[in-house]
Amino acid sequence: MDLSTPVTRAPIDPGFLNRLRERFGSACHTGDAMLRQHGASEAHFATVLPDAVVFAQSTEDVVDLVNLCVEAGVPIVPFGAGTSIEGNAVPVHGGVSVNLGEMDAILAVNAEDFDCTVQAGCRREKLNEHLRDTGLFFPIDPGANATIGGMASTRASGTNAVRYGTMREAVLSLKVVTPEGKVITTARRARKSAAGYDLTRLYVGSEGTLGIITEVTIRLHPIPDTISAAVCGFDSLQGAVATVVQSIQVGVPLARVEILDDMQIRAVNAWSKLGLPEVTTLFFEFHGSAAGVAEQVEMVKMLAAENGGGDFAWSNLPEERARLWKARHEAYYAAIALRPGAVGWTTDVCVPISRLPECITATKEDLAQSSVPATILGHVGDGNFHVIFAMDPASAEEHAEVEAINARLVRRALDMDGTCTGEHGIGLGKQDWLVEELGDAVDTMRVLKRALDPRDLFNPGKIFAL
Amino acid sequence: MDLSTPVTRAPIDPGFLNRLRERFGSACHTGDAMLRQHGASEAHFATVLPDAVVFAQSTEDVVDLVNLCVEAGVPIVPFGAGTSIEGNAVPVHGGVSVNLGEMDAILAVNAEDFDCTVQAGCRREKLNEHLRDTGLFFPIDPGANATIGGMASTRASGTNAVRYGTMREAVLSLKVVTPEGKVITTARRARKSAAGYDLTRLYVGSEGTLGIITEVTIRLHPIPDTISAAVCGFDSLQGAVATVVQSIQVGVPLARVEILDDMQIRAVNAWSKLGLPEVTTLFFEFHGSAAGVAEQVEMVKMLAAENGGGDFAWSNLPEERARLWKARHEAYYAAIALRPGAVGWTTDVCVPISRLPECITATKEDLAQSSVPATILGHVGDGNFHVIFAMDPASAEEHAEVEAINARLVRRALDMDGTCTGEHGIGLGKQDWLVEELGDAVDTMRVLKRALDPRDLFNPGKIFAL
Repeated sequence: MDLSTPVTRAPIDPGFLNRLRERFGSACHTGDAMLRQHGASEAHFATVLPDAVVFAQSTEDVVDLVNLCVEAGVPIVPFGAGTSIEGNAVPVHGGVSVNLGEMDAILAVNAEDFDCTVQAGCRREKLNEHLRDTGLFFPIDPGANATIGGMASTRASGTNAVRYGTMREAVLSLKVVTPEGKVITTARRARKSAAGYDLTRLYVGSEGTLGIITEVTIRLHPIPDTISAAVCGFDSLQGAVATVVQSIQVGVPLARVEILDDMQIRAVNAWSKLGLPEVTTLFFEFHGSAAGVAEQVEMVKMLAAENGGGDFAWSNLPEERARLWKARHEAYYAAIALRPGAVGWTTDVCVPISRLPECITATKEDLAQSSVPATILGHVGDGNFHVIFAMDPASAEEHAEVEAINARLVRRALDMDGTCTGEHGIGLGKQDWLVEELGDAVDTMRVLKRALDPRDLFNPGKIFAL
Repeated sequence: MDLSTPVTRAPIDPGFLNRLRERFGSACHTGDAMLRQHGASEAHFATVLPDAVVFAQSTEDVVDLVNLCVEAGVPIVPFGAGTSIEGNAVPVHGGVSVNLGEMDAILAVNAEDFDCTVQAGCRREKLNEHLRDTGLFFPIDPGANATIGGMASTRASGTNAVRYGTMREAVLSLKVVTPEGKVITTARRARKSAAGYDLTRLYVGSEGTLGIITEVTIRLHPIPDTISAAVCGFDSLQGAVATVVQSIQVGVPLARVEILDDMQIRAVNAWSKLGLPEVTTLFFEFHGSAAGVAEQVEMVKMLAAENGGGDFAWSNLPEERARLWKARHEAYYAAIALRPGAVGWTTDVCVPISRLPECITATKEDLAQSSVPATILGHVGDGNFHVIFAMDPASAEEHAEVEAINARLVRRALDMDGTCTGEHGIGLGKQDWLVEELGDAVDTMRVLKRALDPRDLFNPGKIFAL
């Protein structure tokens, strides 16, 4: 599939655009700058313009928009923060981009039940600021300051997933506008239920292809009594990965453990002014009671020392920790900035933890042969890591080289019973790999898609070819 | 819906039975005793006989059976341990019961990755015996010694769910025979993935209505360094529940916390020879490092003392703990045995934890007016509890009384944003309540069912009317 151009694109009916403007007034945009913003992603995918952008203010707006689009046979693509590392929100068949970013209300915080309900456009940093006084937090943190709805749609995770799980575990319930224009709520607020099919988890990760998420009820967690963060450099990539794998295998409940290879450290040093030695480095965070954290730290320091780790540099003040994790969250932008004028091309795989050392070492060796600068970083406690290429967007050779390295990486992960994407989703970029990974199960996904969206109007062209 | 008789039942084609016998030989049964065993449940639902029972030995057997049944338009109903508290495996439209109990191999244990793969018929106690030397265990424990496949099908949980989650969190991947006779694997063995729709969790909890699960890959957990179990009696039901809610709200990572009301304690005393004071009692288990468990215990003892709890009676020897939890697991049988000749009629709800005191207290008051003996017990750390009635099977009045109490209980839970079933599933018994709970979302479930099983041959008549 050539991803640079949409497959088919019927001309939009001017009458449809008039009906949109009539219903949504100034919330409906067709200006070039706005279309361009909604047709792009933060990765290397070609921009494809939607025909219109509508800023929804309410679930009712989304219902009306869905009904107008379905009646006219026009595609509808939900848009959150627009990170779209796999081109997830690029409207490859045109139609309407529905921007949910202004639906950002925090509707309810049930602190006693450790849950809250937000509109889909609420961003994770805003939520955590709002929660600060409750003693609770929402742990899931992809690099971007993403919307909770977007995170649900791509089954996002991030640095805390090793301890707190991903959006799969975090979402208790969703409000969804279906292709029929109905509003459904997928579950009640009880922590568990055996009531019928798990629609919540069907929509989590469905990338807007089955309907539009407008509200999300999520689990929260108590801010631990003690939080300690540390950075530790290693004399080899192997030693750093072995420290992580052994820590997990002896049952240390690490809250965060991130790897950054030497190139990535160079990038964050430059971008975030960190001044770390330019060697493979682990960023740790430990959560628990004072005694619990002390136990964890003792065990991990011992394992690190056995594996060629240096001293632990501690960041125990909240502002130091915030600086450290801000640098980690900006690692993607830092990596691209290694090369002026470059575009980011990133991939992620996830393998069973026992296979991680082999997978990551072979990948590093492969990158050493590449002419395109690339970094490795990842959520290694889950077996998940990323490669970020800083690619010359004008070079077909570099594109081909990156594609080939990515293919070898994904094949390596699949051969180890891993997955072609730990957290970025399939979007446009991983469709062929999804079929390699799951075979006939993808046909079952297609059956579900056709049943729920028979006209293929909801984010068409994503996850799989129909 | 009158649950005592099947809705429609076409006579079975003798040619079909001959084809079954030809293919499956002595693994195909049509004798009355065998049909009766597979037409019954451990609850109050009327027995409905299948036309035949086939003991599958392999996924290939299941494929062939599915193809034969679909070709002939004959229903097919998977059968594990046959607990079926909500009538989940009762073949209300006849057809073939496929018993998976002889497919009980443990196919792989990946101790380094904390996971294993078993055939669907493997029982949870067998698995844990097998795992003992690895230092790992599988925590999910419904009362019965259930099959892992059956537990996946009903999204089972049990006493450890408050700490370790339910089958929703435990299942990494499934092998499923689809109604088309294809064998699909729903995921790889990586701990997380964003690769397409979450088919794993679509099948978990689908009660055999979308296909037949033949293999299950599940997460395991390290056996904690320190395990302490204790029993504590309370001078009121409210005090016991308040202790649980407050423990959860201050973030104590309880491994198990079970409530048994005074009637249930009387029942387990008689059944399991425990000699506990006949008051509302909490069964606790604490997991962690020595220091971690000591911290947890200190906090919970303080909360219990503030809420009218007595002394903690400790069971720290493995055999004492085993006796305690065996008694808990047999509580259902103990409750029924309170009344000779009675049949069990049980229900379960789950509410947000903040509403649990109100829900459980109102339920106890309602039971106090009942002429049918009933106990309350439950996994209160999740907000989940059961009522077990020891009902005279011959009494229509008692049946009506129990139905009315159950209706009030479920209505109460739904009014508190809870669910009509925390872990038993919908089966036959909760179908109307599912619609009350989730409204139009049930239509979305029906769309999925029709798409995947267009002829309604897979455990027809369960979860919802089509």
